[in-house]
Amino acid sequence: MANLIGFPMIRVGVVGASGYTGGELLRILSIHPEVKVNVATSREFAGKPISYVHINLRRYYPDLKFSNVSIDELTSRCDLVFVNTPSGISQKITPRLLESGLKIIDLSPDFRLRNPQDYEAWYGMKHEALDLLDRAVYGLPELHREEIRNANLVACPGCNATSSILALTPLVESNIIDLERIVVDVKVGSSEAGRRPNPGTHHPERANVMRPYSVEGHRHVAEIIQELELLSRRKVKIIFVPHAVGAVRGSLATCHTWLTQQKIDDNILRRIYAKRYGGEPFIRIVGEGLFKYPDPTNVLGSNYADVKAVPYQDVGAIAFCAIDNLVKGAAGQAVQCMNIMLKLDEKMGIDTPPLRPI
Amino acid sequence: MANLIGFPMIRVGVVGASGYTGGELLRILSIHPEVKVNVATSREFAGKPISYVHINLRRYYPDLKFSNVSIDELTSRCDLVFVNTPSGISQKITPRLLESGLKIIDLSPDFRLRNPQDYEAWYGMKHEALDLLDRAVYGLPELHREEIRNANLVACPGCNATSSILALTPLVESNIIDLERIVVDVKVGSSEAGRRPNPGTHHPERANVMRPYSVEGHRHVAEIIQELELLSRRKVKIIFVPHAVGAVRGSLATCHTWLTQQKIDDNILRRIYAKRYGGEPFIRIVGEGLFKYPDPTNVLGSNYADVKAVPYQDVGAIAFCAIDNLVKGAAGQAVQCMNIMLKLDEKMGIDTPPLRPI
Amino acid sequence: MANLIGFPMIRVGVVGASGYTGGELLRILSIHPEVKVNVATSREFAGKPISYVHINLRRYYPDLKFSNVSIDELTSRCDLVFVNTPSGISQKITPRLLESGLKIIDLSPDFRLRNPQDYEAWYGMKHEALDLLDRAVYGLPELHREEIRNANLVACPGCNATSSILALTPLVESNIIDLERIVVDVKVGSSEAGRRPNPGTHHPERANVMRPYSVEGHRHVAEIIQELELLSRRKVKIIFVPHAVGAVRGSLATCHTWLTQQKIDDNILRRIYAKRYGGEPFIRIVGEGLFKYPDPTNVLGSNYADVKAVPYQDVGAIAFCAIDNLVKGAAGQAVQCMNIMLKLDEKMGIDTPPLRPI
Amino acid sequence: MANLIGFPMIRVGVVGASGYTGGELLRILSIHPEVKVNVATSREFAGKPISYVHINLRRYYPDLKFSNVSIDELTSRCDLVFVNTPSGISQKITPRLLESGLKIIDLSPDFRLRNPQDYEAWYGMKHEALDLLDRAVYGLPELHREEIRNANLVACPGCNATSSILALTPLVESNIIDLERIVVDVKVGSSEAGRRPNPGTHHPERANVMRPYSVEGHRHVAEIIQELELLSRRKVKIIFVPHAVGAVRGSLATCHTWLTQQKIDDNILRRIYAKRYGGEPFIRIVGEGLFKYPDPTNVLGSNYADVKAVPYQDVGAIAFCAIDNLVKGAAGQAVQCMNIMLKLDEKMGIDTPPLRPI
Repeated sequence: MANLIGFPMIRVGVVGASGYTGGELLRILSIHPEVKVNVATSREFAGKPISYVHINLRRYYPDLKFSNVSIDELTSRCDLVFVNTPSGISQKITPRLLESGLKIIDLSPDFRLRNPQDYEAWYGMKHEALDLLDRAVYGLPELHREEIRNANLVACPGCNATSSILALTPLVESNIIDLERIVVDVKVGSSEAGRRPNPGTHHPERANVMRPYSVEGHRHVAEIIQELELLSRRKVKIIFVPHAVGAVRGSLATCHTWLTQQKIDDNILRRIYAKRYGGEPFIRIVGEGLFKYPDPTNVLGSNYADVKAVPYQDVGAIAFCAIDNLVKGAAGQAVQCMNIMLKLDEKMGIDTPPLRPI
Repeated sequence: MANLIGFPMIRVGVVGASGYTGGELLRILSIHPEVKVNVATSREFAGKPISYVHINLRRYYPDLKFSNVSIDELTSRCDLVFVNTPSGISQKITPRLLESGLKIIDLSPDFRLRNPQDYEAWYGMKHEALDLLDRAVYGLPELHREEIRNANLVACPGCNATSSILALTPLVESNIIDLERIVVDVKVGSSEAGRRPNPGTHHPERANVMRPYSVEGHRHVAEIIQELELLSRRKVKIIFVPHAVGAVRGSLATCHTWLTQQKIDDNILRRIYAKRYGGEPFIRIVGEGLFKYPDPTNVLGSNYADVKAVPYQDVGAIAFCAIDNLVKGAAGQAVQCMNIMLKLDEKMGIDTPPLRPI
Repeated sequence: MANLIGFPMIRVGVVGASGYTGGELLRILSIHPEVKVNVATSREFAGKPISYVHINLRRYYPDLKFSNVSIDELTSRCDLVFVNTPSGISQKITPRLLESGLKIIDLSPDFRLRNPQDYEAWYGMKHEALDLLDRAVYGLPELHREEIRNANLVACPGCNATSSILALTPLVESNIIDLERIVVDVKVGSSEAGRRPNPGTHHPERANVMRPYSVEGHRHVAEIIQELELLSRRKVKIIFVPHAVGAVRGSLATCHTWLTQQKIDDNILRRIYAKRYGGEPFIRIVGEGLFKYPDPTNVLGSNYADVKAVPYQDVGAIAFCAIDNLVKGAAGQAVQCMNIMLKLDEKMGIDTPPLRPI
Repeated sequence: MANLIGFPMIRVGVVGASGYTGGELLRILSIHPEVKVNVATSREFAGKPISYVHINLRRYYPDLKFSNVSIDELTSRCDLVFVNTPSGISQKITPRLLESGLKIIDLSPDFRLRNPQDYEAWYGMKHEALDLLDRAVYGLPELHREEIRNANLVACPGCNATSSILALTPLVESNIIDLERIVVDVKVGSSEAGRRPNPGTHHPERANVMRPYSVEGHRHVAEIIQELELLSRRKVKIIFVPHAVGAVRGSLATCHTWLTQQKIDDNILRRIYAKRYGGEPFIRIVGEGLFKYPDPTNVLGSNYADVKAVPYQDVGAIAFCAIDNLVKGAAGQAVQCMNIMLKLDEKMGIDTPPLRPI
């Protein structure tokens, strides 16, 4: 296979392709001009055509079927692999794929945390590929673009971590808030829980809820603290509480912060965000319009993160970030990282406007 | 009209009866054994039967029609009036009704704030019935039951104020949190905005949103601070941000607080809440069960407030309160206040279990 | 236990109490003044308190726990049992309960069909209690009130059968439509599928759908044909297609019929329905109002069926019926049948107005 | 402006650009490689940037502002105009634009009906551009591709007409159903009602509904009958009832038909549909998969129409068609027509996979 101007297509594999993130990867890659998906794995649906599960993709992968994971098949038929597995699995597969010279974009949590003790504390198991932790780059282009460019192993952030970090970064860098009194209150849609049904995602139990969960400690907070401490070189304390709300897609981080200096007005905050994110292809700073704050319904189906910060009555600053949890929070960001790693246009294949209303 | 044992029914009027709170009042009062609704006012629907607007109430008020507000009709045909108007209107009507000896339960914001300057600051107008501010009792039975019993004018709280104050009261009273670093993040359903359509409540614009609003300052925060400062006799600072989420009914207050002393465990918090709310007929402390945190979908259609507080990793405490914004957040609480004022069983007419799933 | 005037309470059991219909039975019976629930069975949750599963019912059954089914316990502790099991189970339990002199209200499909061959054809198993088929009464009070009054075994209709039959009855009885060209297009909420999660009820898969199902033949059509043929004494043919739509509760039957005589106007249809249903406590004929056609959102939480028929351009008549599938379509109708069997006021415990908006 | 290979871009105008269909046109055209939008009109928002209203399109039209309609501006700056106005307006504008040599794609109802009496009957006004009725082509490519290719004036179908006609066409052409006993039961999302709020689209009133509307006669039925009679050359009678259901996007037509010959099995119907639609770029015949019937949630954001027909118990055939009402039911189909008129690849700019889950 070749692209329009005759160069060979990049051969890609998706490990864990039948879930929602897998489906989004296949959807996005189906229209990416430089990539061909050669392998899509799923234990449950091995042998079935892609559209059997992803019925939206009928016609897009007429010749591809789900297969079982095979390292040999991946190494022989792929140049780059998206690893999209539960925690604990990627660390078994990824080392072997890297050894064979493949580039890896890991959407699992296995390589996000630099400190192996953090991994053990949050994921309840020992890490089995400690030597790779240093080589893995945290796949948030807005913070680590240059490292991603040179990486062979990129560990993409969790969706709530993406929205939280993007909301807070300019505030943290500008050194105007109390870093030990940050509150992040997140709202998410039901697709975050993945494709597998459980008692809490059964429609009658999930529709219309405003339901806190993982209040005792959500795993994504470890990534958020890691990245914000890297930015600030100081101790960061966060209360982080996610809430399931009535939507299928979307993650909104509302970050409540207390100012360390009085009188930060609207304009100063706008300039801080504009300066930090001015050149970013997928960050939009929300200003004028019929609705004035970030809301995931304005970015659905796209790789955009809408952000804004406003002062709160001389004492605080509220920073918001809204993303599509399956795109900028997962598959889209992974493709953005892929484009950077492959020295393609960073927006290739993901430069589509959000769908609205939806 | 007489009740079952021959006493005359209490004659009630509802000023502002065609909106959602008005409809809930009519729904609840239709099954209240000691009350008869004699007057229901609506400028827009004057002359129409109740069920023309409240189509759920077909059959319940066969002989009642909406009428225009008339002080004479209210004073001659009612013993007690629910005043359910926009801010600024109640303060014109209520003094005249009180003078005629009626009891008033005001669901508007006009008599909630004790300090007239606060009213002016938040509602943008001078208060015209200053002399009544001292006589008005804030209609939250869990804080002011005895005063309500002796009041002629009760000012019911806003729905988000109800959920926020009920969540925070035991924490504030027990003196274990930093009162100047409270964050209240509220999620609400669309019915909170009332019956009148606007661009933000149009279904395609409102469905599935996670949309912050009134970030610059929501009026309910003034009530919350007033009541919490009354409880604590100290300065209270709150960052308060409401969010519209995908539901019709419900208000969830998530109150993020920072502990002033370390090591408050689960059991201590449970005991604090159990002790404070043990005898309350409409407060349920959420414990064991398929879902472990308050969520409005567990209280819809009822006057219950589900509450719970949990520690957050040795540094914080999160307190939740979930209510039906139209019942415990408005009409149900108003009837609870009425029962108290009239020395009836406090649960009369509102002792119905929530509807679930819905 | 005694009721208010000193008579002993009727002792009731619920077999299959942890599902949605079971939960609705418990909710309704909790406020029924003549009934006490003594037994509630659930294999999965045996030993757990009621509110562990039905978290809305916290406080309502403080002393009751789920138990395993025991015929002995049921016969010794109950006067009447609601049997709410999958098909095939009730026919094993019910005969033994009847023998012991209990009254049975069966919410399963086991005793709805009079013809055992129909049962075998639609449910794929032989019926093991053929002798009871003649004694069982189809529990639709609007069609079989007198038989229910004298029955010991009542078989409550399916929810979609209830809405379809109630919509069509006056049209069929008045002999103005082509009985062999009836189309019934049903829309239902997700709670119809019960509490157990499956791939089709997972929230991301179920939200916002307009999804036909059981198109090859839905079991409820057998009941509908049975009842309409009983009414008309003629052959009835129906195309019946249910659709899952975006709601938790509700069943709307839209019945499209072709007139056998021209020129049936609005008034004639209204009179036909008014005459047929005039005295019915739970049928409301929809007329004037902000919304002019039946819609389940106007009856949620209640036992009402809203009905209406209108002519379609000189050639057809469309009949609608909207119910809450868990109330008039299941638990509420079962309690209505119980009231009739026990010679209580038919509306006792179910005379509550619908909740709206919701 | 030039496209990638140096040819000048086609200059396009959108009259009525601030509504939902206008927004979808702008969204789709923003990624169309051969088109540049030069004019977007809106009386209400004239002077505002596109993203003020279409907040999803932030960044996509940095230099374009809404303007008032000006025939001169349209004729001087555009080669082709999408006319997206209420009924009665297009017939005033379109003749003047055509005279100036522009190509017109009309999304209003003004030029859909060939018979001016039909127009008068359904739209309540005289048609003022009768001479154009013969030149207008009904913009359903699956029925009129060749005529569209040669047309200067294309009248795009209504969304419910699109889904209904596409579902029924193969059945009607194959002459196996009773053409005078067709029932079309349509379910639609709230975006169909357009951007302007009304009491029925207010979120608390619109969420979760199953609400029949326009039961007395929906305007789209006139188009459907016109097209099906053209296909069959025989009299067609349809009962057509739309229902608002709980979703923002989507139109599902369920077409219930009675067979004129017995024993049409699954395979025959599949072959009839496969043969008729085999080469169609935007029709997908639904077969195997996790879900087996058309449902709009499988096509959202795309120009696909998913169709399927199945036999109903030897007596009937049910045909389904699911579309995104704003894409294949409006803007996408209009762009498909544009591509045909301009001799571009028919799929250009609209060859994107649906978004799912959503």
